[in-house]
Amino acid sequence: MKAILFDVFGTVVDWRGSLIRELSAWAQNRGLNVDWPGLADAWRGAYMPSMNRVRRGEIPWMNLDDLQRQSLAEIGEKFGLPPNLAEADREHIVTAWHRLDPWPDAIEGLTRLRRHFTIAPLSNGNVALLVNMARRAGLPWDMVFATELFRHYKPDPETYLGAVALLGLKPHETMMAAAHNGDLAAARALGLKTAFIPRPTEYGPGQTRDLQAESDWDFVAGDIADLARQLGA
Amino acid sequence: MKAILFDVFGTVVDWRGSLIRELSAWAQNRGLNVDWPGLADAWRGAYMPSMNRVRRGEIPWMNLDDLQRQSLAEIGEKFGLPPNLAEADREHIVTAWHRLDPWPDAIEGLTRLRRHFTIAPLSNGNVALLVNMARRAGLPWDMVFATELFRHYKPDPETYLGAVALLGLKPHETMMAAAHNGDLAAARALGLKTAFIPRPTEYGPGQTRDLQAESDWDFVAGDIADLARQLGA
Repeated sequence: MKAILFDVFGTVVDWRGSLIRELSAWAQNRGLNVDWPGLADAWRGAYMPSMNRVRRGEIPWMNLDDLQRQSLAEIGEKFGLPPNLAEADREHIVTAWHRLDPWPDAIEGLTRLRRHFTIAPLSNGNVALLVNMARRAGLPWDMVFATELFRHYKPDPETYLGAVALLGLKPHETMMAAAHNGDLAAARALGLKTAFIPRPTEYGPGQTRDLQAESDWDFVAGDIADLARQLGA
Repeated sequence: MKAILFDVFGTVVDWRGSLIRELSAWAQNRGLNVDWPGLADAWRGAYMPSMNRVRRGEIPWMNLDDLQRQSLAEIGEKFGLPPNLAEADREHIVTAWHRLDPWPDAIEGLTRLRRHFTIAPLSNGNVALLVNMARRAGLPWDMVFATELFRHYKPDPETYLGAVALLGLKPHETMMAAAHNGDLAAARALGLKTAFIPRPTEYGPGQTRDLQAESDWDFVAGDIADLARQLGA
């Protein structure tokens, strides 16, 4: 095994906690009264359907920033966003996805893994989002594979196979690491190795999905640092 | 200005010195008698024409590793490579381009610039080559823009504009830094800022090209550390 590809939202960074923390603090200073937990959940809920519209060709290619901007326009008012919100404020909210905090184990785990393996995100986030996030959080990627590079979203095969080919590797030399069973199932079907890293609070306190491995993944790790330990890194 | 894109071969790494050093040492252990300086120069000489065949559509898309492999097969024997060289040895020579050493100022300069700007290569090297090079040499890139991502080689506009767009920036928010006037001319024509970093020994002791700035580039720097100094980084 030469390289490990990481899902990012949920696996490496705590999108829900970060959005709620940052946007609550920001809104308080501006006297905005928004239900941020509700908005974060609904926004993430709109994520897969919006990408699926692209994947099925119902709308032309749009990167994640653009999809999130569109979703926010559709759901924001329901949670208290004023319809006349200034454009700059709206953009601040959309780019909160660029400023997500890593889970506490992520930097240590990635830093250790990087000594032995090429590491990169393979994320539906766009390049600018992932690069801004990595610079702010200190994620030590060797390369940034946004699925935007392939004009396909995961779980389309073009994304996994595209990253593997660009690294000059074979699928079995590459491992997909994710907190989501579906992501791993798609990767395994193409011959990649798989590592499941459950994040039982990714979706908040009442999470019901992806609490455990739903297949015999090659590795199941408590967190990224544990994955490093299991791999002798 | 938010981001700086770097040409790599010649600007960040000393391809000629590295190839000669590494391959001479390697060949000596195997009793191969090859004119490595001659081969390095002829190989680099074949570089632009081979990319131009792709750019003009005369041959289908091929990444730099594949072009270099093809060029080596064409010119190798003239400089003493045995025609019956083992495949693994031939591959070792081709991937010497993944193992080039940075100029002495590169790591310090890039590390300082990275604190203030997003930094990335924009190189005709392929992703695997650039990622392997960065891991070995410790180049602290935020992202790796191989022109392979755009299926175009520099100086095609798709490469410069492709990197700028993926970073979510405007051309004037991005600077191209290169040891080659032609690279900068192409970038400036598209609205990017420009920094010239002459490398007067890139092509060896008798270098006649790119010894000085051929236009009023936005910055002219003695090396990458000097560019950082000029930018207050």
